[in-house]
Amino acid sequence: MEHNQNLSQKDNNDNVEYVTSYDFEYIHKLATQILPFYSDISPKSELPDPKHNKRLQTLLGLLRELHPADVASVLEGLPQKERVLVWKLVAPEEDGDVLLEVSDAVRESLIETMATQELVAAVEDMDSDELADLVEDLPTHVMDEVLQTRDEEERAQFQAAVSYEDDQVGSLMDFDMISIRADVSCEVVLRYLRRFDSLPEHTDKIFVVDENDILQGVLPIRKLLISEPDDEVEKVMARNVVLFRPEDNAEEAAQAFERYDLVTAPVVDNDKKLIGRLTIAEIVDVIREESETDMLNMAGLNDEEDLFAPVWDSVKNRWVWLAVNLVTAFIASRVIDAFESTIAQIVALAALMPIVAGIGGNSGNQTITMIVRAMANAQISTSQAWLLLRKELGVALVNGVLWGSVMGLVSWWLYHNMGIGLVMVAAMTLNLLLAAVLGVAIPVVLEKMGRDPALGSSVLITAVTDSGGFLIFLGLASLMLL
Amino acid sequence: MEHNQNLSQKDNNDNVEYVTSYDFEYIHKLATQILPFYSDISPKSELPDPKHNKRLQTLLGLLRELHPADVASVLEGLPQKERVLVWKLVAPEEDGDVLLEVSDAVRESLIETMATQELVAAVEDMDSDELADLVEDLPTHVMDEVLQTRDEEERAQFQAAVSYEDDQVGSLMDFDMISIRADVSCEVVLRYLRRFDSLPEHTDKIFVVDENDILQGVLPIRKLLISEPDDEVEKVMARNVVLFRPEDNAEEAAQAFERYDLVTAPVVDNDKKLIGRLTIAEIVDVIREESETDMLNMAGLNDEEDLFAPVWDSVKNRWVWLAVNLVTAFIASRVIDAFESTIAQIVALAALMPIVAGIGGNSGNQTITMIVRAMANAQISTSQAWLLLRKELGVALVNGVLWGSVMGLVSWWLYHNMGIGLVMVAAMTLNLLLAAVLGVAIPVVLEKMGRDPALGSSVLITAVTDSGGFLIFLGLASLMLL
Repeated sequence: MEHNQNLSQKDNNDNVEYVTSYDFEYIHKLATQILPFYSDISPKSELPDPKHNKRLQTLLGLLRELHPADVASVLEGLPQKERVLVWKLVAPEEDGDVLLEVSDAVRESLIETMATQELVAAVEDMDSDELADLVEDLPTHVMDEVLQTRDEEERAQFQAAVSYEDDQVGSLMDFDMISIRADVSCEVVLRYLRRFDSLPEHTDKIFVVDENDILQGVLPIRKLLISEPDDEVEKVMARNVVLFRPEDNAEEAAQAFERYDLVTAPVVDNDKKLIGRLTIAEIVDVIREESETDMLNMAGLNDEEDLFAPVWDSVKNRWVWLAVNLVTAFIASRVIDAFESTIAQIVALAALMPIVAGIGGNSGNQTITMIVRAMANAQISTSQAWLLLRKELGVALVNGVLWGSVMGLVSWWLYHNMGIGLVMVAAMTLNLLLAAVLGVAIPVVLEKMGRDPALGSSVLITAVTDSGGFLIFLGLASLMLL
Repeated sequence: MEHNQNLSQKDNNDNVEYVTSYDFEYIHKLATQILPFYSDISPKSELPDPKHNKRLQTLLGLLRELHPADVASVLEGLPQKERVLVWKLVAPEEDGDVLLEVSDAVRESLIETMATQELVAAVEDMDSDELADLVEDLPTHVMDEVLQTRDEEERAQFQAAVSYEDDQVGSLMDFDMISIRADVSCEVVLRYLRRFDSLPEHTDKIFVVDENDILQGVLPIRKLLISEPDDEVEKVMARNVVLFRPEDNAEEAAQAFERYDLVTAPVVDNDKKLIGRLTIAEIVDVIREESETDMLNMAGLNDEEDLFAPVWDSVKNRWVWLAVNLVTAFIASRVIDAFESTIAQIVALAALMPIVAGIGGNSGNQTITMIVRAMANAQISTSQAWLLLRKELGVALVNGVLWGSVMGLVSWWLYHNMGIGLVMVAAMTLNLLLAAVLGVAIPVVLEKMGRDPALGSSVLITAVTDSGGFLIFLGLASLMLL
């Protein structure tokens, strides 16, 4: 590994441990302690107070040894002021790598603190696909200045990369490819490789193309290493290649990487001309982000959020889902209001109704999560919806009768009223059945409509089981108890 | 790629497309269509009806071309009967690979259908680490029979692998390592590699050890390929190695792989003796499972569930969280019951109270999800809890005053009662503040107690904001309106 993140404070080993939360906490502590001297601090300064100076030098030493990805994590975990302080201390030659590693939300806050020339220096050595990743955050004049120094090929690569959506393979590909012809011997390939100063990261295969850059196959390094020097590439190469087009969906590409245990894969255009490659490093980010986005969306957060963002930024990130929640809660409230006279006669109903709504929401969320997950993994097709529905109805019936009876007995005992108990059993069972129907229907319909079934389906199902639960329970009570 | 999943029906290209949900749907359809002939079907049978025979042969052809990981996905997406049918048709030599790829829940249902000798045949060629992965699902007598055929080293590897927990690096490592000494030249290494029939998957580095197998460094293949033949390994190898111990936490190892863009890494014991290696293929599974488990747990599902499990299995997987939900709902119900006389006097309160509880739950879940996620990524330390709390209280205050005022005005207008409107504003603001406090406190306390902050925290926060919301709203109403 080229990385040098030996935290000698923690480990006197020659070999390197990876950085853990323990180390982050130590860095956070140092940053907080020297924060009062903010204006006196620069990468080369010494503080007059020996105790604080020691802390500053320790911090500088640690930052020098950290991998840019670790520096990014440190910055993400720091409040605004401490973050700016640590960012000042990071060596300028690492700035670019850290900017690439840090989350979108935090990148903005870092770029704000940098002067134009610092920014240009930080990004001028980047590959064109890396520059493209920053296109939304870098000020236009910085980007223009940097692009001017590029040759035509690189500018074209940059244009290609920015022209794809975030969820397309084209936005993930890089251009660090090594390609060879099929009619040379393995020995020639080895000699050719030896001429490079370094090979691209993750190089596990070499792309075999014809004179028009049309992909013919790939030569896995694993095969190259065991082949006879005289063997022709043509004979050794694999012709069946998992390949991608820039328009392909990134999440499907990630699934292919996972299923076929890929490390890199070629990206080709419609004529099968080689235009880029995907690496597992980008794919791992897709996998991580995909599930995190689902989790954030299910919790009603719009976007990845900077933990220490100003209050107002956080309010903006969260208000949409709170508003949606208020609207659905308001509808449920109107349902209850419609039964005002029923509740006035039997006040116990007001206490029991949240139980019916609650269990419906919980059960519906179980169903919907399972189905959204299976859809994301491409395990089920919408044509199987009927089978799933039948099964979920069975589960709902069992749970409804089981837990409905428990709560029915408890209600009977509490309110000395068998009618209330029976209404509880019936309402809980019916609301669970409703939850099962919609737990299957909502993701299937969203998918058919071409929408992401994860987004908002939890809010939808809860809205239905709340309003539906109140309606079923209070409706049954009005019919049977008054 | 060695894989051969060319779905020629779909694509007449020479090169291979990866399999998509479209292909799965086609296979599902074929399986359903020939299901009536279940008892007549075997991998070599012909069906008398030409139409159905064609379907059977198409299905067989597709299955032959699918990668085992794709076959696993197909099986996961099929109902029980169709699944058993397709499983019968899978070529026996693929059985082992499919069993390794399939989810735990589905693996059980496949193994149930297999005779002892089929099982032995399926697993006898597996590596010892792969066998260890199946230890919980294979009948003991099958495992014993297979282990008897292994030599002592392999049995020791098997014992080592099964002795670690699922969340430890030791359970993920394999033993496909190539190691060399530091005092040989790169040319010797190349010649040594050429003697292998094949190199282990994902080989991106060779481990450099001394005569006692103590790790000295690693020789990245990328460096080997560009080095001069006469260079000594000692000179070319990297000494700073990210390495793991078998007791290390798997999720932390996954984060290290992500941050340092690793493809493989050595696993060593306390004396730094090389005992195994981790590959990105295993790590990708950890990343996927980690976030899926969080998502399932947050939705109140205990475990990964077979979509087409018998109803009773699903009930067992889900009942715990439904029971927890019922208990918390019951407590909330008791809170409401305590204000029976207040509600009897102002029935409108029954309709408005779910709004107060709902927005608290929603906002609390936003806070808790963000913090759980930051903790999982080791971005924040518990010592920063105060800073986060201050910020979350600010967000809650803004949202409370904002949305509280909206709902306060609406309530005033609906019920022509300014008092109700004011109670709404106050109760919503207070419940959001409560949600902020507990949204920070719950994960921090769970973490301090050494528990997983993801597990159950969503249920806990909703319980508090429900009961708390009812208490605040009805309590304020009793004080101010009666």
